[in-house]
Formats: sequence, C-alpha cells, structure tokens
Amino acid sequence: MTVPAYAAVDWGTSSFRLWLMDANDNVLAERRSGEGMTTAARTGFADVLDFHLGALTAPADMPVVICGMAGARQGWIEAGYVDVPAPLTAILSGAVRIPGEQRDIRILPGLAQRSTASPDVMRGEETQLLGALDTLGDGDQIVCMPGTHSKWVHVSDGTVTRFSTFMTGELFEVISKHSILSHAVDAADGDDEDAFADGAEAAFQNPALATSLLFAVRAGQLLHGMTATQARAKLSGTLIGLEIAGALQDSPNVSGIGLVASGKLQSLYEVAFRRLDLSYTVIDADTAVRRGLSVAAKALWQGEER
Amino acid sequence: MTVPAYAAVDWGTSSFRLWLMDANDNVLAERRSGEGMTTAARTGFADVLDFHLGALTAPADMPVVICGMAGARQGWIEAGYVDVPAPLTAILSGAVRIPGEQRDIRILPGLAQRSTASPDVMRGEETQLLGALDTLGDGDQIVCMPGTHSKWVHVSDGTVTRFSTFMTGELFEVISKHSILSHAVDAADGDDEDAFADGAEAAFQNPALATSLLFAVRAGQLLHGMTATQARAKLSGTLIGLEIAGALQDSPNVSGIGLVASGKLQSLYEVAFRRLDLSYTVIDADTAVRRGLSVAAKALWQGEER
Repeated sequence: MTVPAYAAVDWGTSSFRLWLMDANDNVLAERRSGEGMTTAARTGFADVLDFHLGALTAPADMPVVICGMAGARQGWIEAGYVDVPAPLTAILSGAVRIPGEQRDIRILPGLAQRSTASPDVMRGEETQLLGALDTLGDGDQIVCMPGTHSKWVHVSDGTVTRFSTFMTGELFEVISKHSILSHAVDAADGDDEDAFADGAEAAFQNPALATSLLFAVRAGQLLHGMTATQARAKLSGTLIGLEIAGALQDSPNVSGIGLVASGKLQSLYEVAFRRLDLSYTVIDADTAVRRGLSVAAKALWQGEER
Repeated sequence: MTVPAYAAVDWGTSSFRLWLMDANDNVLAERRSGEGMTTAARTGFADVLDFHLGALTAPADMPVVICGMAGARQGWIEAGYVDVPAPLTAILSGAVRIPGEQRDIRILPGLAQRSTASPDVMRGEETQLLGALDTLGDGDQIVCMPGTHSKWVHVSDGTVTRFSTFMTGELFEVISKHSILSHAVDAADGDDEDAFADGAEAAFQNPALATSLLFAVRAGQLLHGMTATQARAKLSGTLIGLEIAGALQDSPNVSGIGLVASGKLQSLYEVAFRRLDLSYTVIDADTAVRRGLSVAAKALWQGEER
C-alpha cells in the first residue's frame, strides 16, 4: 500500500476539500464537506481537520498544507498577505505554521494589492494560480478565475503584477434572490445559451448600462414575455459580460486568457469568450489548486523522510 | 371653508400619498402611509382609499386621480402603458376608471419602451415628469428621477423619445444588506461626502470596473482601515456614478439635467453632479408629482361643477 506523504487542503469560506497525497503527488483519497471557514470558526478548525484525517486513518506525523480562508483574520490563524507585485513563489516562504499542534500544519498566505485606487485581496486563488502556471508556463499571462468573487490576474514570468476582483457570482446570488428580479427568475429551469451570450455581449459592449440592462430583464418579461429561464441566463450573462469588459479594458490586444475553472462556470465563461471572439486556454480549477498545494508541499518539506 | 375639488394620489409599491386639493390646485390636506401596492393588494385598494378619504371627511362625489403601481397588473386595475415615443399628455387620455365605484376614480397609465434591445417601463414617474415639464419647459431635456429604480428620460418639446431605468437604489439595498459588503457597511453612522463623490467619480470614469470597485470597498476596509461610514458612502457613490455614466454615455454634450428629487437623494445626486461638472436644475419630486396629478385632474374633469 502506498504511504500518504501529506494532505492538501483547500479551505474556503463555505467549503472544505482535503486530498491525501503520496510522495509523487498522486491523490490517494479525497474528502469534501461544507465545513468552510464560517462553520469551522464555530466548531473549531482543529476538530474539523482531525475528523477528516481520522476518517482516512492518516498517520499522526503526516504534514498538512492549507490554502484559503482558514488563513484569514477570522480563520484558524492569520496567514497574512504577500504584497504584489511579487513572484508567486513568495507565498511558499510566507506559510504560517499552526502553533501548539504536534502535526506540522501550514497555512499559505494570500495576496494583497495595497494601492489606494485599487485595493484588492485574494486567498486561495494564489495557490490555484501557482498550480495553473505549471500549465500556462512563462511569459505575460492574463488569468481568469471565475467564482463568487472572480479574480483576474496579470502575471509576467511568474510574477503577479496586479489583479482585480469582480463580485460577479455574489451579485448574481443576491440579485436573483433579493431584488425585483427574483420574481423574474425564480421559475427558471435549465439554461439558455443564446440569452446568456446575448446578455454577455450587450454588457461587454455597453458596460456603463449594466444596471439598466439588469432592469431590462424585468421589462423584457413584462413586455416581451421573456421566460424565467431566459431571464436568469440574461442576468448571468450581463454580470459576466460586465466583468470581462472591466478585466480587459486596458488589455484590448490580449492574445489569450488562462481560464481556471470547472463545471458550470467553465461552460459559461467559455460561451462568453467564444461570443466575444476571445481566445482562451482552460485549466481545471480542482487540478490547479491541488497542483499548487503540491508545489507548496514540495517547497516546505522537500528532503524530509516520511 | 374651501371646498375640496379632487384628491391626488401617488400610489407606489410601498407607499401611499394622498393630497386633498381645491379647484385652484392648492393643497388642503395630506395623508401618507406605508399602504403601497404590496400591502393594498392584500387588504383591498378600495378600503385603503376610503379610509384615508374618510379621515379627511372628503365629499362622496369628489373624484380621485391616481398614478403609480396601483395601475400595474398586480395593482387595483391594470392601467396599461402608453408606448414611447409619445407626447407625455397621451397619459391623460389613457386614464382608466375603476368600474363599479360610485366615486369617479381614475388611474393614469405608465410608459413602455417596447424595443427588443432596450425594453423598459415606468409607472408613476410619467406623472412626476408631466409636473416637472411645467417647470422645465419645452426644448430637449434630459430628466433624472432617482430612486429605487432611477429613471432617465429624454424629452423633446413634451414628447418622451426614450428612457432608461437603472436599478441603483435597489442594488444599494440588496448589496448593503445581503452581500459580503454588509459587514463593511453595517456600522455606518452618517454620511461622508468625499468618499461618496470619490466613488461616483471612479465609477463614472471606469464604469466597466463597477463590480470590482464594489469589492474594493471590502478590500479598502481590510487594507486601509476604511470606516463603515466611508464604505457605505463609497458603495452608494459607485452605484450612482455608474448610473450617470450609462445615462449620459450617448449625450456627452448635455447642457443640463433636470433633477426631479427631494431630501437625501437630491443631496446625493447634487454632490455627484457637482463633482462630475454636470449642470442641473432641481425640481422638487413631491411638488412635481402633485403638479402632474393636477394637470391630469384638469384634463379629466375640466368644466365640471363641483
């Protein structure tokens, strides 16, 4: 039987994912749960981690590397930020060890952009990016990591030069649940790729009209009998088109976008990029974060016998 | 004692306002309550109106003119829409009388823009606009009516040529209550004019970055210790600056904006317009809607003895 070498944990706000890895970075086992930072802050981070390691009968001296919101101020222990511009590998030396634990548990720091005009932070995506760059290679890159808070990162030969967060996913949630558009979208059933792409294109071409395009979803339903499925697709497309317009406004000649995503979000962004004639390369988001954690584990414990 | 000639009612989604008017359009008495369409659809529109008229001992044969959501499909009776482009006075002939009521009660229709690209509707603001044009006069006008769903209307010699609705006020509500920014703004106490104007200017100049500027409110608090009051002002400024950018993007040489507003919203838009070097004329929103209802009452019942 292969001996586990370390555990890799992606600990977000609302999700917990753990992979048991061997010394060659193969996945031996996986655990997923909803015990993200919000839950673990109440029930105890150590208990959550111990429970999942126990369920996999992981050795007591096996180290654990963690990225994500567990390193936030309201997380397990604050892992701080690496200030950009910085080589992405700077997060490796910034890892913080949990004190008082016999097991060697390290949390990777996030990235901060401290400019007064565009303050920004990320936590978790920096590790995903580290893994994605393994695939994307050197040179100038624009990397898109869609989600609740989508990140667009400019990387040059492994150095993060700047990044922007767009509240796209969260706005989709709050607008479809809590605004007048909730009535327009609540019977939505399935997807409508055309309505989505139309919404993305309209917002990309006219980003200043974004909140008017949102109201047009409601008006389109009143005046043109737009269905709930079309309305939800249009809402989603409008927010994603607005994001892409903002992310690329100072990079009109972008040669290609690294899209770090999986599942539904990956499909949506692919549809939008195709409609907008933007070329892109997909890197699976799960693979990227695991690879980033493996790179970190190697840097932290290379040469140690297990 | 002056005899009341008619009642003018502005019946919105969440508010009810009634003015008892004499034949010379002077206000004899006023009633305000939270019995908007949402409440009245449950308790009965006729009962709400009767209660308030009764409290003012209004004559049984005195007519009532109503504008707003009481004329929506889910309101008292559907008053339909006048399609733009159309002279604004077309709403007068489109008034719908409530059937089966002894009293003459009329509800004014809304406006609809049926274009496929920019479908839009308004209900209530058309009457406010009718009153505002009394002050603004003829010629080409751009009229801004801020609110939950801000309306920007292009009028040429009394004809509405087109209009756009921006979900500004509602987005401010849902974002400050239901998004990650709720933590950033919930201890806000008072206003910060500079933070508001900075937010408005940044979004006006970079509308495509709107949802990134929203996240910067959160990041600014984490990295620069921005206060909750500053954060709320910046959120508000960002949404209003985005609205103004969209409303004026095809009218860069606008000579003046008619601002139909009152109270807090009036101050906010004045601050934004001044920061953006836009000239404007203020028309009090309450006066405008009352004046619009008076114009309608004259058209509906002129020459009748009361």
